[in-house]
Amino acid sequence: MAAHVAAKKADLEVAMLLRDDLVCRSINQSHVNCKYLTEHRLPENIVATTSATDALAGADFCFHAVPVQFSSSFLESISTHVDPKLPFISLSKGLELNTLRTMSKIIPKALGNPRQPFIVLSGPSFAVELMNKLPTAMVVASKDKKLASSVQQLLASPNLRISTSSDVTGVEIAGALKNVLAIAAGIVEGMHLGNNCMAALVAQGCSEIRWLATKMGAKPTTLAGLSGSGDIMLTCFVNLSRNRTVGLRLGTGEKLDDIMSSMNQVAEGVSTAGAVIALAQKYNVKMPVLTAVARIIDNELTPKRAVMELMNLPQVEEV
Amino acid sequence: MAAHVAAKKADLEVAMLLRDDLVCRSINQSHVNCKYLTEHRLPENIVATTSATDALAGADFCFHAVPVQFSSSFLESISTHVDPKLPFISLSKGLELNTLRTMSKIIPKALGNPRQPFIVLSGPSFAVELMNKLPTAMVVASKDKKLASSVQQLLASPNLRISTSSDVTGVEIAGALKNVLAIAAGIVEGMHLGNNCMAALVAQGCSEIRWLATKMGAKPTTLAGLSGSGDIMLTCFVNLSRNRTVGLRLGTGEKLDDIMSSMNQVAEGVSTAGAVIALAQKYNVKMPVLTAVARIIDNELTPKRAVMELMNLPQVEEV
Repeated sequence: MAAHVAAKKADLEVAMLLRDDLVCRSINQSHVNCKYLTEHRLPENIVATTSATDALAGADFCFHAVPVQFSSSFLESISTHVDPKLPFISLSKGLELNTLRTMSKIIPKALGNPRQPFIVLSGPSFAVELMNKLPTAMVVASKDKKLASSVQQLLASPNLRISTSSDVTGVEIAGALKNVLAIAAGIVEGMHLGNNCMAALVAQGCSEIRWLATKMGAKPTTLAGLSGSGDIMLTCFVNLSRNRTVGLRLGTGEKLDDIMSSMNQVAEGVSTAGAVIALAQKYNVKMPVLTAVARIIDNELTPKRAVMELMNLPQVEEV
Repeated sequence: MAAHVAAKKADLEVAMLLRDDLVCRSINQSHVNCKYLTEHRLPENIVATTSATDALAGADFCFHAVPVQFSSSFLESISTHVDPKLPFISLSKGLELNTLRTMSKIIPKALGNPRQPFIVLSGPSFAVELMNKLPTAMVVASKDKKLASSVQQLLASPNLRISTSSDVTGVEIAGALKNVLAIAAGIVEGMHLGNNCMAALVAQGCSEIRWLATKMGAKPTTLAGLSGSGDIMLTCFVNLSRNRTVGLRLGTGEKLDDIMSSMNQVAEGVSTAGAVIALAQKYNVKMPVLTAVARIIDNELTPKRAVMELMNLPQVEEV
């Protein structure tokens, strides 16, 4: 996202706040991120730093991409450097495990500022394709319409279409739960259950996410749109996602601990799955597919048994 | 479908009405269809015939799988042999080119019986996977709830889940227009536009189909369900469909005539695309993706120009 914005506006300085000094140096000296998408040259107006004070000084916008489970503690640690009017554009998808909160709640709470401007950016967008300037469409959602429009203007380019929405809940819940569904999709593939089964599972999962999100106040059309089923399809049907890989390995019989210890990136769906059962209870929604994933991850259910259970659910009228 | 029903109920005689005497003989003598899915042995209680009178005599149900564009003339030719109480289970997906009608209208009209019992069967279901007994889920929709339940009982099995619905319009329109969207998906792949673009296109296409179908009286939830976005995903993201193949070859620059003359099966989406522009006008719905497919097929627009037009549409709030 830094590369996209920097390439769009050459007169802008884009500061990247990183933990790893080695990555900082590779970006500043060679204009390459030595850890991710290493084959791509980054625009020269990207400056990397490990200092939050430097990164935040004079910023017009802040893109927040810290994994959800680490966001609260990170944001608390930098809160004194944050301008209370600085808009946070959230890229992080998921639910905080104990509080069941999404980023729109986590950010103002952790910064101690209920009015911190907030926008969520979501939609079907593999980073590598955006880097290769392939056509991509995403959604920005904010309660503040003017702010959504200004972020749209910041990001929209000939290869990136940006729609605006006011449905923060719909966009955030779809973005969080799609990662759990991606694990289910991986399991179906790992068990070689076929494409019919995959489509049935993803359709059922989309419905479950819609049932929950609408009970939480989201609009049904958001769940059917680009940041809803559009993003879910990409995550479930295409092989590039970390969450899907976790599911695939679960489906072939590997143990979760072995899978997790062999991965060097965070699979957000694993944490979010833990929050699904609590959320289903809190909002009184039946979510057989998504809760099955949580039970498989918790070792309470085998993938094979889960499939049998799902095929034997009562066959009622579609809702 | 004949194999599925026959395998489920060994005491049932399943008659298949075919045009090709050679295929009939291969089914009756070797229990193999020598033309499609040739590697599968068929149940011995399937009897093939070229005689409509024989096939229809004493039938409890009729599965109709004649391509939409040929259905009216075929049904008119057999109408005198059809019991006015015989339920027709339609497998054919599409819109009749000149009349814009779906099978629920075509069947009673062609048979001259407005009360001919009608059910549509739809959902993400590649035949080869059903033959291999992989888990599959489908929807039966009928205005007659009892009839829908009896078809559910006829078809449901440990590997085939059947849901019922009363939304015939929603199920039929999604089933018809998904084939047009599959052509668009093929074009995106043929042009190597990437997965982000594919997901954006399919999400937009799903919305367009929902806008049209709801104006025609369908329920939005049907479009978001198994026979809606579930089936659309399968058709667009997986490589097995004829319509997608047509799109893929259009995307790489081949001419439609050359593509059509080299295929030995009907790609229903090509005919249905012709009906889309008329339908969009009739119901006053904007459908930029689906009408672009129709214009590409009619040689009024190149795939490249279509992508540019779609990326430059006004970026309004998601609906």
